Amino acid sequence: MTESVQWWLEPVKQPDMNAKLQAEQRQLQLTKPTGALGDLEHIAITLAGLQATVHPHIEKPWISVFAGDHGVVEENISAYPQAVTRQMLQNFASGGAAISVIAKYHHAHLQVIDCGTVGEAYDYVDVERHCIRAGTANFAKQAAMTEHECATALRLGKESVERAQSKAADVFIAGEMGIGNTCSASALACLLLNESAEQLTGVGTGITNQQLLHKIDVIDQAVKLHKSYVADDAIKILAAVGGLEIAAMTGAYVRCAQLGLPIIVDGFISSVAALCAVGIQPKVREWMLFGHQSAEYGHQRVLKQLNAQPILNMNLRLGEGSGAGAALSMIQLACVLHNQMATFAEAAVSGDKVAD
Amino acid sequence: MTESVQWWLEPVKQPDMNAKLQAEQRQLQLTKPTGALGDLEHIAITLAGLQATVHPHIEKPWISVFAGDHGVVEENISAYPQAVTRQMLQNFASGGAAISVIAKYHHAHLQVIDCGTVGEAYDYVDVERHCIRAGTANFAKQAAMTEHECATALRLGKESVERAQSKAADVFIAGEMGIGNTCSASALACLLLNESAEQLTGVGTGITNQQLLHKIDVIDQAVKLHKSYVADDAIKILAAVGGLEIAAMTGAYVRCAQLGLPIIVDGFISSVAALCAVGIQPKVREWMLFGHQSAEYGHQRVLKQLNAQPILNMNLRLGEGSGAGAALSMIQLACVLHNQMATFAEAAVSGDKVAD
Repeated sequence: MTESVQWWLEPVKQPDMNAKLQAEQRQLQLTKPTGALGDLEHIAITLAGLQATVHPHIEKPWISVFAGDHGVVEENISAYPQAVTRQMLQNFASGGAAISVIAKYHHAHLQVIDCGTVGEAYDYVDVERHCIRAGTANFAKQAAMTEHECATALRLGKESVERAQSKAADVFIAGEMGIGNTCSASALACLLLNESAEQLTGVGTGITNQQLLHKIDVIDQAVKLHKSYVADDAIKILAAVGGLEIAAMTGAYVRCAQLGLPIIVDGFISSVAALCAVGIQPKVREWMLFGHQSAEYGHQRVLKQLNAQPILNMNLRLGEGSGAGAALSMIQLACVLHNQMATFAEAAVSGDKVAD
Repeated sequence: MTESVQWWLEPVKQPDMNAKLQAEQRQLQLTKPTGALGDLEHIAITLAGLQATVHPHIEKPWISVFAGDHGVVEENISAYPQAVTRQMLQNFASGGAAISVIAKYHHAHLQVIDCGTVGEAYDYVDVERHCIRAGTANFAKQAAMTEHECATALRLGKESVERAQSKAADVFIAGEMGIGNTCSASALACLLLNESAEQLTGVGTGITNQQLLHKIDVIDQAVKLHKSYVADDAIKILAAVGGLEIAAMTGAYVRCAQLGLPIIVDGFISSVAALCAVGIQPKVREWMLFGHQSAEYGHQRVLKQLNAQPILNMNLRLGEGSGAGAALSMIQLACVLHNQMATFAEAAVSGDKVAD
């Protein structure tokens, strides 16, 4: 590695097991049958451990959307033209995209980071432009990026989390935009899980069945091209077939775990970045909640690998962080119920069951 | 029927197909791949039809919680003592129950209506006390209520909806409280669907497996007792094995459809009331969204009968309207995305796919 300090190998924080236990105890005292709030109880208890308090809360959510272009679009694997990456960047910042609306709805801070897209210089307001490179190389033919470029992308993610932390964010969402990035995510998942493209490739933004077969073929060939030298090294895998935005998300997740900031993982691409982060350090997993089960084929397999129970299952397949953003409502409600419901003692309600 | 006018047979409103079509068209223009917001798109489109506007909205949600006691608790079919119905009534009104917290979170109006519980007169603030009767009779031995009492309960639901309408509510949630009411709901479902208790009975607030077998037996016996004279008449079935609060919810749903107020159905008991309402007038179904798939066994069967796609699936099994209340967030977000996202033209984003 060219990066002098491999910060991503520094240890991650431990969740607070005592706070989690206290939250479990509190749930047993609230005026409802034991377990009757189902997943909402688990969410509050998990978050209590991550936020190290018996009263978890979501008041300052932070959303960073990372964008990058993908050389593999040369292979005709995407439904939309590459120019859409840039157009959507502007749409994020001007408030018209789904994630912009969701961020506003939740009073979340929305940061938009261009990690490397194709095209001329621009000055979109509220887009932070970095150009690690003008999109990745076509990974069907060569490595998508150098390890140095990959390390720079990881650092963009790291810096984003540090900014969130400095602004007292209480939860972190990474979203993404990049025409072609489901192709990159599928190739990453194939290498990380040692499975075939057929198991892990979907239609993305909506290609035809014929294009899907072609996309699977492109990924299988790329996996063959890179497999021998990347082995099971998550950083090498990211550099070989990843995207700049996916590497940034990976870096962000690792940094969240190091700083103790809870993560809400979004859909397929976000979950593959989570898989990369867990490949770097398995304990990063402990800092993750999973926003939703996406409609993208392959997501379920990745979630299974991560032992993840997604909060929502609403057939979303948009990316941008939108599914994680939608799940924010449920996490917030879980906290509010946990904190504001009366206990049996407070309400003078009988918590004892009748004799069997 | 003793009720001189059978108001529940008066015709229901038609959703506005033109507004729905316009909403569908709008979804196609928003800056996202077609269908990428999944269920959130369907929710907004459905609600557009129900609210007769291309811009559906949830600003004034109304929640009515109906309570009633059940004579069938004599058969030892519930985990909690009957006194809990009354205790929870007070907890709803004083703000400590799950539905109270959810109502406050959503700035929803919460109305608490006692349709007939066991015990002395009381003066809990913010509980509207009616005593149609002090709990139903034990339906294992006789009809739960007379048809006149059933009609009075239906009317309580009707009046609640009329109140909501007069306060400009834009969506209606009915919740319930009543120790023993999953037993009544299962018996209703058995008679309405002509199926055995084994298929439609769950553990409710948490009885043991042995108690569950006993509960199933009690329901099967009751179904045999009442089946011949109730036939497939929903009102007679409600009077035979229903609850005062379930009859009130049924009346509320029918009235919502008559006035054109969208309904969010809650869990098992609420869905059985929906089944009763649809049994009275099939077109009431068009006014319903379904908040969640509950963990209560039998709910899935009832949802299937109603051809319902629940919004959430979070293993909730509390009742009170809590699952429908949780789903409010998703419905609200669906509206906000539908109304506030930019169109391709507004954002100068290419909505055309690349050539195949």
